[in-house]
Amino acid sequence: MKQLVVLGSGLVGSAIARDLSRDEDLRLTVVDVSEANLERVASLPRVTPRRADLSRPQEIAEAVAGADAVVGAVPGRLGFQMLKTVIEAGKPICDISFSPEDVMQLEGLARDKGVTAIVDCGVSPGLSNLAIGRAASQLEEIDSAVIYVGGLPVERVWPYEYRIVFSATDVIEEYTRTARIIEERRLVTREALSEVELLDFPGVGTLEAFNTDGLRTLLSTVSARNMREKTLRYPGHADRMRMLRETGFFAGEPIDVKGASVVPRDFTERLLFRAWLRKPDEEELTVLRVIVEGPAPGGEARRFTYELFDRTDRATGMTSMARTTGFPCAIMARMLARGAYRDPGVRPPEFFGRQPDVYEHLVSELGARGVRFGEAGG
Amino acid sequence: MKQLVVLGSGLVGSAIARDLSRDEDLRLTVVDVSEANLERVASLPRVTPRRADLSRPQEIAEAVAGADAVVGAVPGRLGFQMLKTVIEAGKPICDISFSPEDVMQLEGLARDKGVTAIVDCGVSPGLSNLAIGRAASQLEEIDSAVIYVGGLPVERVWPYEYRIVFSATDVIEEYTRTARIIEERRLVTREALSEVELLDFPGVGTLEAFNTDGLRTLLSTVSARNMREKTLRYPGHADRMRMLRETGFFAGEPIDVKGASVVPRDFTERLLFRAWLRKPDEEELTVLRVIVEGPAPGGEARRFTYELFDRTDRATGMTSMARTTGFPCAIMARMLARGAYRDPGVRPPEFFGRQPDVYEHLVSELGARGVRFGEAGG
Repeated sequence: MKQLVVLGSGLVGSAIARDLSRDEDLRLTVVDVSEANLERVASLPRVTPRRADLSRPQEIAEAVAGADAVVGAVPGRLGFQMLKTVIEAGKPICDISFSPEDVMQLEGLARDKGVTAIVDCGVSPGLSNLAIGRAASQLEEIDSAVIYVGGLPVERVWPYEYRIVFSATDVIEEYTRTARIIEERRLVTREALSEVELLDFPGVGTLEAFNTDGLRTLLSTVSARNMREKTLRYPGHADRMRMLRETGFFAGEPIDVKGASVVPRDFTERLLFRAWLRKPDEEELTVLRVIVEGPAPGGEARRFTYELFDRTDRATGMTSMARTTGFPCAIMARMLARGAYRDPGVRPPEFFGRQPDVYEHLVSELGARGVRFGEAGG
Repeated sequence: MKQLVVLGSGLVGSAIARDLSRDEDLRLTVVDVSEANLERVASLPRVTPRRADLSRPQEIAEAVAGADAVVGAVPGRLGFQMLKTVIEAGKPICDISFSPEDVMQLEGLARDKGVTAIVDCGVSPGLSNLAIGRAASQLEEIDSAVIYVGGLPVERVWPYEYRIVFSATDVIEEYTRTARIIEERRLVTREALSEVELLDFPGVGTLEAFNTDGLRTLLSTVSARNMREKTLRYPGHADRMRMLRETGFFAGEPIDVKGASVVPRDFTERLLFRAWLRKPDEEELTVLRVIVEGPAPGGEARRFTYELFDRTDRATGMTSMARTTGFPCAIMARMLARGAYRDPGVRPPEFFGRQPDVYEHLVSELGARGVRFGEAGG
């Protein structure tokens, strides 16, 4: 009987707990400061809800003390401190918190403690990293790696044809933060929303892709001549967002409006949150395409394409966002708890993407949950 | 020697004064509360600047006491009171102030005083009314009258391809106020920015036209089975404005933004004013097309098309907006001063559009100033 502690019972944390609770040989403790969040998991079998403040390292240390493995699913701003605390406690962790800090800073600590800390284990970052790691293991070098990823509503409603799955704040941040990409082996920057291109996705239609800052750990862990991430939306979305950004609607410096000091981004977030709000019955989908090119060890030019497609689970109402972000984390957390994966250090998925058995296990377990992910062509 | 008093020395008032100052048999007094506005006309021949507060009826009455005719070119909010004061003073007036109130309410007063009060004497309202009046005089009845009008920058700059010629406030008001149109002889309403259609204008290209509330006096002075006004912009503008409006950016009710109460329209106006600001060297153009259809007295179906095209005057830098709005008013003010047009009452241009001599005089005088206006086809 393995003990797992899930830190955070939000949209994704509770989805992970739900998946883990299906295993009769696991015992779960789910920790959150919010009673409402804990309600999400209260009726699951083999789950003990525990109320604790995850912004306090002491409370985290106490919560994970008896764990065989930990799942990190806290808000991004708490992510780094939480990860550090769990590593210091000597517990293996699979994390999905996407902290803004560079988690690779904890590499030394994790190795010292002999702790395997899997980070960024969602869809992108997550399965995108896995795909690049797998391709890298089959190539002499990477000439080009491009990640296309997007979460979209099935029904396209004018004018944005978009619904939020996390928060409006995060999306506006994604549309304003400068994108870091690799070009001819150099780290260069591009404006977010730039270099819009159109791509066809069978079953979805034509989408547009534009630069966003999503490479995270890949910037330092993978050697590639060219590498970038692009976000997918229905065509026209980037132009509308650029219009808002260039007019000043996303600006962070306050302006004076008839005597009141207002930060445009705060104002706009209020209105876009309302406009982007997903209605309870609105289905959404997740699309991921990763294309990696380069010479194989024999010199032959190869091109690998990995694709993911998923939709809202109509039976449970679980969003595709929660499914595709939560399942990879739940699958790897099981491996950690059972000792089936151990590699002390901070390990984003490009690391175990190089291990065929782990890759195959993930593809097969995702498939069992209805998430179509795998290699699309050679 | 005729005495003319110009009330208001803003963009349009000063353009009117400049035009009138070319006549050696006219003496002008130009009145404004702002010294900076009076500076615009200080160097013109035969012009006496006079500082007075045009929001005070007494000061208006004093200023127009010795006038043979008056030009009204004050801000809209002052327009109705100014017009009433001038009529009470017994002075003929040609007005371009576009007050929000229904100026036809002053019809009784003007007839009692024996005063000819020409109102809405610009381009649209103005020459558009003139065209409909002229067509009406040649038809048994009007089946359909459509006014297409727009002021646009020559250079199309992403994303709005638009520059303000008056104020951002007025433009946002135009995009939010419900449009009143005549359909099958009934007064009906349409959303502003609705029923977008594309039209080609030789020398300009394809423009889009959408409903706006611009019929004003025509709603009560002209009998037509169908009548509407549509505003012209470069294609795509209406969609962007609808997006802003439907997201709540033009709302008049305050919302809470992190503790501050903010009226979205005030906020958005600040940003759009900046984005729409015309740079000093940016040329603009004015396009007007009026199409009137119906049976002639003999029963034969007729279709009249009137068109105007004008651009910034490169020699003087005078905007096309100021030219096309100011010149019709200046030309009619001369006729009033010389007694060449007299018809006691409130007289928008659809009235004298029915008089061939006045219509021909306007077309010819506009042509002499480089404004191409006239009938395009039969």
